[in-house]
Amino acid sequence: MEKRILGLDPGLAIVGFGAITLQQTQGKVQDFSVKMLDFGVIRTSSDMEMSQRLATLFDDLNTLIDDLQPDLVAIEKLFFYRMANTILVAQARGVLMLVLGQRKLPYVEFAPPQIKQALTNYGKADKEEVQEAVMRELDLEEMPKPDDAADALAVALTAAFQL
Amino acid sequence: MEKRILGLDPGLAIVGFGAITLQQTQGKVQDFSVKMLDFGVIRTSSDMEMSQRLATLFDDLNTLIDDLQPDLVAIEKLFFYRMANTILVAQARGVLMLVLGQRKLPYVEFAPPQIKQALTNYGKADKEEVQEAVMRELDLEEMPKPDDAADALAVALTAAFQL
Repeated sequence: MEKRILGLDPGLAIVGFGAITLQQTQGKVQDFSVKMLDFGVIRTSSDMEMSQRLATLFDDLNTLIDDLQPDLVAIEKLFFYRMANTILVAQARGVLMLVLGQRKLPYVEFAPPQIKQALTNYGKADKEEVQEAVMRELDLEEMPKPDDAADALAVALTAAFQL
Repeated sequence: MEKRILGLDPGLAIVGFGAITLQQTQGKVQDFSVKMLDFGVIRTSSDMEMSQRLATLFDDLNTLIDDLQPDLVAIEKLFFYRMANTILVAQARGVLMLVLGQRKLPYVEFAPPQIKQALTNYGKADKEEVQEAVMRELDLEEMPKPDDAADALAVALTAAFQL
């Protein structure tokens, strides 16, 4: 059985996305393998007013989901950093969640420490360790860029490991 | 010239709305008057998962705007209280802003101290003083309930005074 998982790293200026396929084979021993399908970012320009940036996110995420047809979405929970920034990211994340709701797409959410734990067995791993785990698990020769896309692949992998 | 202003008090469980008309008459002295048009709340149930609550907000705000046909929307800026709550409200506010963006509706934003200042001439006025000003300005016999609807009328009035 194959499952497509779309990982999302929420943001206002940049939303990272990373899609993987999870292949589960049921033999004597249940086995599974993951493969990279696509990754990249959705960007919105700070020249636009907020409501237009959110409308762009809405349209672009819908297009992305039309293209990738995921079975499951994995979306990162917000990490508290600076308050003003957190509010902007939360507003953008609300639009992403809306799209999942409108399309009745199943989704799972993970906080950063859960993602780190799933990929490195250490909840406080640093960015580089997580990215190396992403490369290893997906058998990649180069690190996906920008970081937001790599982060999105990490969220997708966390969902795959949980299934 | 008449202008319809829709005030919004963002939230996840409850979004307050309050619509007023602003009548500007141009005689020897420019004069204006405000009238209450409608007020109420949009509610989403905590029994629904987040993405469905946001989809409900999206649909209900679109219906409300279809009904009221505002010329301008005035939306309250987020006030920082508890972090977890602020994130939930910000996600909901993102959906409200998205609707404004999709409909290309002009909007203005005011922080709570700006609203208090506009209605009472005192940026740190308490809730009761602001509500009394709303009643006085709109010539109401009773306080609009719940508080979220009264707050939304206060935002709409702030926009009217600024015009």
